[in-house]
Amino acid sequence: MGDYKDDLATRGLDAFAPYLMNRIMRRYNQTLQSRMADYDLSAPKMRALASLAVRDGLTVNELAVYSMAEQPTMSRTLDQLERDGFITRTVSKTDSRVRHCSLTDAGREMYQLTWPEMDAAERAMFEGVSDEDRAHLLATLRRMLENIKQNDF
Amino acid sequence: MGDYKDDLATRGLDAFAPYLMNRIMRRYNQTLQSRMADYDLSAPKMRALASLAVRDGLTVNELAVYSMAEQPTMSRTLDQLERDGFITRTVSKTDSRVRHCSLTDAGREMYQLTWPEMDAAERAMFEGVSDEDRAHLLATLRRMLENIKQNDF
Repeated sequence: MGDYKDDLATRGLDAFAPYLMNRIMRRYNQTLQSRMADYDLSAPKMRALASLAVRDGLTVNELAVYSMAEQPTMSRTLDQLERDGFITRTVSKTDSRVRHCSLTDAGREMYQLTWPEMDAAERAMFEGVSDEDRAHLLATLRRMLENIKQNDF
Repeated sequence: MGDYKDDLATRGLDAFAPYLMNRIMRRYNQTLQSRMADYDLSAPKMRALASLAVRDGLTVNELAVYSMAEQPTMSRTLDQLERDGFITRTVSKTDSRVRHCSLTDAGREMYQLTWPEMDAAERAMFEGVSDEDRAHLLATLRRMLENIKQNDF
Protein backbone atom coordinates (compact mmCIF):
# COMPACT_ATOMS: atom_id res chain seq x y z
CA MET A 1 0.00 0.00 0.00
CA GLY A 2 3.05 2.23 0.21
CA ASP A 3 3.91 4.97 2.59
CA TYR A 4 1.15 7.44 3.40
CA LYS A 5 3.56 10.20 2.48
CA ASP A 6 3.54 9.09 -1.16
CA ASP A 7 1.52 11.18 -3.52
CA LEU A 8 -1.68 9.88 -5.02
CA ALA A 9 -0.14 8.83 -8.34
CA THR A 10 2.26 6.50 -6.50
CA ARG A 11 -0.20 5.29 -3.90
CA GLY A 12 -3.12 4.67 -6.23
CA LEU A 13 -6.73 5.68 -5.69
CA ASP A 14 -7.47 2.52 -3.69
CA ALA A 15 -5.15 3.69 -0.91
CA PHE A 16 -6.83 7.10 -0.63
CA ALA A 17 -9.62 6.90 1.95
CA PRO A 18 -11.63 9.92 0.73
CA TYR A 19 -11.88 8.40 -2.75
CA LEU A 20 -13.12 5.07 -1.40
CA MET A 21 -15.54 6.70 1.03
CA ASN A 22 -16.95 9.08 -1.59
CA ARG A 23 -17.56 6.25 -4.01
CA ILE A 24 -19.16 4.00 -1.39
CA MET A 25 -21.44 6.76 -0.08
CA ARG A 26 -22.47 7.90 -3.54
CA ARG A 27 -23.63 4.40 -4.39
CA TYR A 28 -25.30 3.88 -0.98
CA ASN A 29 -27.10 7.24 -1.15
CA GLN A 30 -28.31 6.64 -4.71
CA THR A 31 -29.61 3.18 -3.85
CA LEU A 32 -31.43 4.42 -0.76
CA GLN A 33 -32.82 7.48 -2.50
CA SER A 34 -34.38 5.35 -5.22
CA ARG A 35 -35.92 3.05 -2.59
CA MET A 36 -37.27 5.98 -0.56
CA ALA A 37 -39.14 7.24 -3.64
CA ASP A 38 -41.63 4.42 -2.98
CA TYR A 39 -42.43 6.06 0.35
CA ASP A 40 -42.46 9.55 -1.17
CA LEU A 41 -39.57 10.48 1.14
CA SER A 42 -36.62 12.66 0.13
CA ALA A 43 -33.20 11.93 1.63
CA PRO A 44 -33.46 14.82 4.13
CA LYS A 45 -36.95 13.67 5.20
CA MET A 46 -35.78 10.08 5.70
CA ARG A 47 -32.72 11.23 7.63
CA ALA A 48 -34.69 13.63 9.82
CA LEU A 49 -37.20 10.90 10.75
CA ALA A 50 -34.36 8.48 11.53
CA SER A 51 -32.50 11.07 13.61
CA LEU A 52 -35.64 11.85 15.62
CA ALA A 53 -36.21 8.14 16.20
CA VAL A 54 -32.76 8.06 17.78
CA ARG A 55 -32.96 11.34 19.65
CA ASP A 56 -36.26 13.04 20.48
CA GLY A 57 -36.42 16.82 20.69
CA LEU A 58 -33.72 17.77 18.15
CA THR A 59 -33.72 21.33 16.78
CA VAL A 60 -33.57 22.39 13.13
CA ASN A 61 -29.83 23.14 13.49
CA GLU A 62 -29.08 19.74 14.94
CA LEU A 63 -31.23 18.00 12.33
CA ALA A 64 -29.47 19.87 9.51
CA VAL A 65 -26.10 18.57 10.73
CA TYR A 66 -27.29 15.02 11.40
CA SER A 67 -29.02 14.89 8.02
CA MET A 68 -26.21 16.50 6.00
CA ALA A 69 -28.56 19.24 4.75
CA GLU A 70 -28.26 23.01 4.55
CA GLN A 71 -30.27 24.73 7.25
CA PRO A 72 -32.85 26.30 4.86
CA THR A 73 -33.41 22.89 3.25
CA MET A 74 -33.94 21.31 6.66
CA SER A 75 -36.32 24.12 7.59
CA ARG A 76 -38.49 23.40 4.55
CA THR A 77 -38.19 19.66 5.16
CA LEU A 78 -39.50 20.08 8.71
CA ASP A 79 -42.40 22.24 7.46
CA GLN A 80 -43.34 19.43 5.08
CA LEU A 81 -42.94 16.70 7.71
CA GLU A 82 -45.20 18.67 10.05
CA ARG A 83 -47.79 19.16 7.29
CA ASP A 84 -47.60 15.42 6.53
CA GLY A 85 -48.34 14.73 10.19
CA PHE A 86 -44.99 13.01 10.85
CA ILE A 87 -43.57 15.47 13.38
CA THR A 88 -44.68 18.10 15.86
CA ARG A 89 -42.66 21.12 16.99
CA THR A 90 -42.78 22.74 20.40
CA VAL A 91 -41.17 25.98 21.54
CA SER A 92 -38.19 25.51 23.86
CA LYS A 93 -38.82 26.32 27.51
CA THR A 94 -35.42 28.01 27.81
CA ASP A 95 -35.22 29.87 24.46
CA SER A 96 -38.39 30.97 22.67
CA ARG A 97 -36.54 31.20 19.34
CA VAL A 98 -35.81 27.47 19.41
CA ARG A 99 -38.24 24.70 18.58
CA HIS A 100 -37.83 21.04 19.43
CA CYS A 101 -39.07 18.37 17.03
CA SER A 102 -40.73 15.09 17.95
CA LEU A 103 -42.07 12.19 15.92
CA THR A 104 -45.84 11.66 15.94
CA ASP A 105 -47.15 8.08 15.93
CA ALA A 106 -47.44 8.32 12.15
CA GLY A 107 -43.84 9.59 11.97
CA ARG A 108 -42.60 6.68 14.06
CA GLU A 109 -44.51 4.25 11.86
CA MET A 110 -42.93 5.76 8.76
CA TYR A 111 -39.49 5.39 10.32
CA GLN A 112 -40.24 1.77 11.24
CA LEU A 113 -41.43 1.15 7.69
CA THR A 114 -38.31 2.64 6.10
CA TRP A 115 -35.64 1.47 8.56
CA PRO A 116 -35.47 -2.03 6.98
CA GLU A 117 -34.43 -0.35 3.70
CA MET A 118 -31.58 1.50 5.41
CA ASP A 119 -30.64 -1.65 7.25
CA ALA A 120 -30.61 -3.70 4.02
CA ALA A 121 -28.50 -1.10 2.20
CA GLU A 122 -25.99 -1.09 5.08
CA ARG A 123 -25.89 -4.89 5.20
CA ALA A 124 -25.15 -5.02 1.47
CA MET A 125 -22.16 -2.76 2.12
CA PHE A 126 -20.84 -5.07 4.85
CA GLU A 127 -21.35 -8.41 3.13
CA GLY A 128 -18.45 -10.69 3.99
CA VAL A 129 -17.01 -8.23 6.54
CA SER A 130 -16.61 -9.82 10.00
CA ASP A 131 -18.27 -8.26 13.05
CA GLU A 132 -14.78 -7.56 14.38
CA ASP A 133 -13.66 -5.71 11.24
CA ARG A 134 -16.91 -3.80 11.24
CA ALA A 135 -16.46 -2.72 14.86
CA HIS A 136 -12.89 -1.70 14.05
CA LEU A 137 -14.11 0.38 11.10
CA LEU A 138 -16.78 2.09 13.21
CA ALA A 139 -14.26 2.99 15.91
CA THR A 140 -11.90 4.56 13.36
CA LEU A 141 -14.76 6.40 11.62
CA ARG A 142 -15.89 7.85 14.98
CA ARG A 143 -12.39 9.13 15.58
CA MET A 144 -12.27 10.65 12.08
CA LEU A 145 -15.60 12.42 12.61
CA GLU A 146 -14.31 13.79 15.93
CA ASN A 147 -11.22 15.07 14.07
CA ILE A 148 -13.02 17.02 11.41
CA LYS A 149 -16.48 17.93 12.64
CA GLN A 150 -17.15 21.58 13.30
CA ASN A 151 -20.19 21.25 15.53
CA ASP A 152 -20.24 20.02 19.10
CA PHE A 153 -22.65 17.27 18.17
CA MET B 1 -22.18 -0.95 20.52
CA GLY B 2 -25.03 -3.43 20.54
CA ASP B 3 -26.00 -6.08 18.07
CA TYR B 4 -25.99 -5.05 14.44
CA LYS B 5 -29.51 -6.44 14.19
CA ASP B 6 -30.78 -3.69 16.50
CA ASP B 7 -32.64 -0.90 14.85
CA LEU B 8 -31.15 2.55 14.59
CA ALA B 9 -32.99 3.97 17.59
CA THR B 10 -31.43 1.30 19.83
CA ARG B 11 -27.99 1.32 18.22
CA GLY B 12 -27.59 5.07 17.98
CA LEU B 13 -26.35 7.04 14.99
CA ASP B 14 -22.70 6.55 15.98
CA ALA B 15 -22.98 2.83 15.30
CA PHE B 16 -24.41 3.34 11.82
CA ALA B 17 -21.57 3.43 9.29
CA PRO B 18 -23.43 5.31 6.51
CA TYR B 19 -24.24 8.15 8.90
CA LEU B 20 -20.60 8.48 10.02
CA MET B 21 -19.26 8.21 6.48
CA ASN B 22 -21.75 10.72 5.07
CA ARG B 23 -20.88 13.24 7.77
CA ILE B 24 -17.13 12.78 7.36
CA MET B 25 -17.26 13.06 3.58
CA ARG B 26 -19.53 16.08 3.61
CA ARG B 27 -17.06 17.94 5.79
CA TYR B 28 -14.04 16.73 3.82
CA ASN B 29 -15.62 17.67 0.48
CA GLN B 30 -16.68 21.10 1.70
CA THR B 31 -13.22 21.84 3.07
CA LEU B 32 -11.50 20.75 -0.11
CA GLN B 33 -13.97 22.54 -2.36
CA SER B 34 -13.32 25.83 -0.59
CA ARG B 35 -9.55 25.32 -0.93
CA MET B 36 -9.83 24.43 -4.62
CA ALA B 37 -11.59 27.74 -5.30
CA ASP B 38 -8.13 29.35 -4.95
CA TYR B 39 -7.03 27.33 -7.98
CA ASP B 40 -10.30 27.97 -9.84
CA LEU B 41 -10.94 24.22 -9.83
CA SER B 42 -14.35 22.62 -9.29
CA ALA B 43 -14.56 19.28 -7.47
CA PRO B 44 -15.02 17.29 -10.72
CA LYS B 45 -12.04 19.08 -12.30
CA MET B 46 -9.81 18.39 -9.31
CA ARG B 47 -10.88 14.75 -9.20
CA ALA B 48 -10.43 14.25 -12.95
CA LEU B 49 -6.88 15.67 -12.80
CA ALA B 50 -6.04 13.47 -9.81
CA SER B 51 -7.50 10.37 -11.47
CA LEU B 52 -5.49 11.03 -14.64
CA ALA B 53 -2.33 11.49 -12.56
CA VAL B 54 -2.95 8.00 -11.22
CA ARG B 55 -4.08 6.37 -14.43
CA ASP B 56 -3.31 7.82 -17.85
CA GLY B 57 -5.74 7.30 -20.73
CA LEU B 58 -9.04 7.12 -18.81
CA THR B 59 -12.27 7.62 -20.76
CA VAL B 60 -15.13 9.98 -19.90
CA ASN B 61 -17.13 7.05 -18.48
CA GLU B 62 -14.30 5.95 -16.24
CA LEU B 63 -13.59 9.52 -15.13
CA ALA B 64 -17.28 10.06 -14.29
CA VAL B 65 -17.22 7.04 -11.97
CA TYR B 66 -13.83 7.83 -10.41
CA SER B 67 -14.88 11.46 -9.88
CA MET B 68 -18.39 10.76 -8.59
CA ALA B 69 -19.95 12.91 -11.34
CA GLU B 70 -22.78 12.35 -13.76
CA GLN B 71 -21.57 11.57 -17.26
CA PRO B 72 -22.81 14.87 -18.83
CA THR B 73 -21.10 16.84 -16.04
CA MET B 74 -17.85 14.98 -16.66
CA SER B 75 -18.20 15.60 -20.39
CA ARG B 76 -18.45 19.36 -19.81
CA THR B 77 -15.63 19.19 -17.26
CA LEU B 78 -13.32 17.53 -19.79
CA ASP B 79 -14.21 20.14 -22.44
CA GLN B 80 -13.18 22.84 -19.98
CA LEU B 81 -9.99 21.04 -18.92
CA GLU B 82 -9.02 20.68 -22.58
CA ARG B 83 -9.73 24.36 -23.23
CA ASP B 84 -7.67 25.26 -20.14
CA GLY B 85 -4.79 23.26 -21.60
CA PHE B 86 -4.75 20.70 -18.76
CA ILE B 87 -5.67 17.60 -20.77
CA THR B 88 -5.60 16.27 -24.31
CA ARG B 89 -7.95 13.69 -25.78
CA THR B 90 -7.10 11.11 -28.43
CA VAL B 91 -9.44 8.78 -30.28
CA SER B 92 -9.17 5.16 -29.22
CA LYS B 93 -7.39 2.86 -31.68
CA THR B 94 -9.93 0.11 -31.09
CA ASP B 95 -13.18 2.10 -30.90
CA SER B 96 -13.53 5.41 -32.73
CA ARG B 97 -16.41 6.49 -30.42
CA VAL B 98 -14.10 6.40 -27.41
CA ARG B 99 -11.52 9.03 -26.49
CA HIS B 100 -8.71 8.61 -24.00
CA CYS B 101 -7.66 11.52 -21.78
CA SER B 102 -4.11 12.43 -20.79
CA LEU B 103 -2.65 15.18 -18.64
CA THR B 104 -0.58 17.84 -20.40
CA ASP B 105 2.49 19.19 -18.59
CA ALA B 106 0.31 22.08 -17.33
CA GLY B 107 -2.28 19.55 -16.12
CA ARG B 108 0.35 17.57 -14.24
CA GLU B 109 1.65 20.77 -12.68
CA MET B 110 -1.86 21.71 -11.56
CA TYR B 111 -2.28 18.27 -10.00
CA GLN B 112 1.08 18.60 -8.23
CA LEU B 113 0.04 22.02 -6.99
CA THR B 114 -3.29 20.81 -5.60
CA TRP B 115 -2.30 17.39 -4.28
CA PRO B 116 -0.86 18.84 -1.04
CA GLU B 117 -4.34 20.25 -0.28
CA MET B 118 -5.95 16.84 -0.70
CA ASP B 119 -3.15 15.28 1.30
CA ALA B 120 -3.58 17.82 4.11
CA ALA B 121 -7.36 17.31 4.23
CA GLU B 122 -6.88 13.55 4.42
CA ARG B 123 -4.23 13.89 7.14
CA ALA B 124 -6.59 16.04 9.20
CA MET B 125 -9.14 13.23 9.04
CA PHE B 126 -6.60 10.68 10.28
CA GLU B 127 -5.05 12.69 13.08
CA GLY B 128 -4.29 10.37 16.00
CA VAL B 129 -5.20 7.25 13.99
CA SER B 130 -2.33 4.73 13.89
CA ASP B 131 -0.93 3.49 10.57
CA GLU B 132 -2.23 0.05 11.49
CA ASP B 133 -5.78 1.28 12.11
CA ARG B 134 -5.64 3.26 8.90
CA ALA B 135 -4.53 0.22 6.88
CA HIS B 136 -7.31 -1.79 8.53
CA LEU B 137 -9.87 0.87 7.58
CA LEU B 138 -8.65 1.00 3.98
CA ALA B 139 -8.87 -2.79 3.64
CA THR B 140 -12.47 -2.81 4.91
CA LEU B 141 -13.42 0.16 2.70
CA ARG B 142 -12.02 -1.62 -0.36
CA ARG B 143 -14.15 -4.64 0.45
CA MET B 144 -17.22 -2.41 0.90
CA LEU B 145 -16.65 -0.73 -2.46
CA GLU B 146 -16.30 -4.16 -4.10
CA ASN B 147 -19.62 -5.13 -2.49
CA ILE B 148 -21.68 -2.26 -3.79
CA LYS B 149 -20.04 -0.85 -6.90
CA GLN B 150 -21.92 -1.35 -10.15
CA ASN B 151 -19.03 -0.79 -12.55
CA ASP B 152 -16.15 -3.15 -13.19
CA PHE B 153 -13.68 -0.48 -12.20
